[in-house]
Amino acid sequence: MELPAEFSLIARHFRPLAGPGALDLRDDAALLTPPPGRDLVLTVDAMVGGVHFLPDDPPDLVGRKLLRVNLSDLAAKGAAPIGYLMTVAAPKGTPDSWFAGFAAGLAQDQAQYDVTLLGGDTTSTPGPLSLSLTIIGHVAAGAAVRRNGARAGDDIWVTGTIGDGALGLQVALGRLADPSGFLLDRYRLPQPRVGLPLAGIASAGMDVSDGLVQDLGHICNASGIGAEIRAEAVPLSDAARAAGPAWLETCLTGGDDYELLLGVPQDRADALLAAAAQAGVAVTRIGRFLSGSPEVVVRQAGGTPLTLAKGGWSHF
Amino acid sequence: MELPAEFSLIARHFRPLAGPGALDLRDDAALLTPPPGRDLVLTVDAMVGGVHFLPDDPPDLVGRKLLRVNLSDLAAKGAAPIGYLMTVAAPKGTPDSWFAGFAAGLAQDQAQYDVTLLGGDTTSTPGPLSLSLTIIGHVAAGAAVRRNGARAGDDIWVTGTIGDGALGLQVALGRLADPSGFLLDRYRLPQPRVGLPLAGIASAGMDVSDGLVQDLGHICNASGIGAEIRAEAVPLSDAARAAGPAWLETCLTGGDDYELLLGVPQDRADALLAAAAQAGVAVTRIGRFLSGSPEVVVRQAGGTPLTLAKGGWSHF
Repeated sequence: MELPAEFSLIARHFRPLAGPGALDLRDDAALLTPPPGRDLVLTVDAMVGGVHFLPDDPPDLVGRKLLRVNLSDLAAKGAAPIGYLMTVAAPKGTPDSWFAGFAAGLAQDQAQYDVTLLGGDTTSTPGPLSLSLTIIGHVAAGAAVRRNGARAGDDIWVTGTIGDGALGLQVALGRLADPSGFLLDRYRLPQPRVGLPLAGIASAGMDVSDGLVQDLGHICNASGIGAEIRAEAVPLSDAARAAGPAWLETCLTGGDDYELLLGVPQDRADALLAAAAQAGVAVTRIGRFLSGSPEVVVRQAGGTPLTLAKGGWSHF
Repeated sequence: MELPAEFSLIARHFRPLAGPGALDLRDDAALLTPPPGRDLVLTVDAMVGGVHFLPDDPPDLVGRKLLRVNLSDLAAKGAAPIGYLMTVAAPKGTPDSWFAGFAAGLAQDQAQYDVTLLGGDTTSTPGPLSLSLTIIGHVAAGAAVRRNGARAGDDIWVTGTIGDGALGLQVALGRLADPSGFLLDRYRLPQPRVGLPLAGIASAGMDVSDGLVQDLGHICNASGIGAEIRAEAVPLSDAARAAGPAWLETCLTGGDDYELLLGVPQDRADALLAAAAQAGVAVTRIGRFLSGSPEVVVRQAGGTPLTLAKGGWSHF
């Protein structure tokens, strides 16, 4: 049921990551005294070798991506991270250096994002490396930003630049040049927008993981309204612009952005801009929510709707 | 990155399991307002097809076992369950009936143990079915029972009967007869001792999953003391007794019991017995913690220490 060296593996690689309440990873469970008067925000993601990461991806980047995709979900709710629990199912014979690199990546990001390991489970598997991470964050009571709060007339904003992750995957697959390495780095290492205070500013929010247009459709569906964005307003990085207009659709629909997609009432635009400046995060207004059916329209410069092969101009 | 029918799968099978705070599984995260003045207890377990369950195990039992092994960890800390998050990585082509059965098993146990689904993630995998479940419970502030609280002179108690799960595995492997089906059922479906109030009674506790002797060694190690148990005091089921004395060692060291192993100060024996009677759980005193090195001795009826091939009579 266990890896032969499970206890030693935990002691060497994972115990140094353990924080208060983890009981040194020597108990059956972790203890957490929740911050008084705060709501907890919980989310979980699984990552499977060959599906979410490639077998030869550097293990520190695998660990950091696993943590960061979950941090991104917390950021989208306006929550600050507390701690996480993790499972690692590894094939027998996984070298110790893999675990060392994986843990080193986690340690680096724990320090950056002020979060610690609370508990976990390690096991062997006859399949590929399979990881899961459950993260716990906190937010002022009742103030978590949801998907279903957007109202017609609210502006649509995004953080950072859109499409780099999807283009980075194309780079990894050898289909696109990336002289600066910027796109590949964006694919391998999401930048979760933790620390952007959204409570009282955003009416709705999520992080962009399935693609901008599809994820905007999720907010429209949950909120029961439509949305219109202007293609030329969507912020692109220099590297994405350099790829050329043939890649625009990939940017709009590709996913793996881990930027925040927000609904913001028009009279709170200044509050968002101030909060974003304080947090050092770029924010860009790209469109508006509209009354009507939950449909996403992407307009080109002249006003013509863009027809997208995947995930645009349709009901979800 | 997703199963083709991920959204539909979630809607049909998992949304009916979602409780308050799960936001209908339509958001990036779940919300939980922690019970005021309580500590949270968190634990996670992974289960992999071919390692923790067999490919042809009934899916409802797989779901129930996944939930119950985690409930058992909560029970060992004296905590009451609140909710859980889950990941399901399934091979492409996993039949819908598997998910239906899996969810039906979870639904049955959710009702029995008063716990609901808070969130999750589903994905495909080129490997075997791989599951993880993170559970959250609550306990009076500061009252969680730990592994490291046992003191020399405390009695050692267990709930229920020991060894049935390990014998049940032998039945599943065709190595042992099980005319009543009792042992196989105990292997497939743990009975977590949720609801046994341990706060103020147990000085230390854990659930028996690796085997009685090895797990007792974990408490000894964490508490910095030794332990002595009497083999003939260890409670065995009628089915385990019928297997005969040749299987005693399997019972003592085999694991998969999911009974509670407790340290209880001698003057709290009556309190434990009263709490156990109230909860309808059998409890049996099997030995005592001793000062000295963290060593577990199993004594036979005449007083001679039993030498165990696995996990006994040694330092851990």
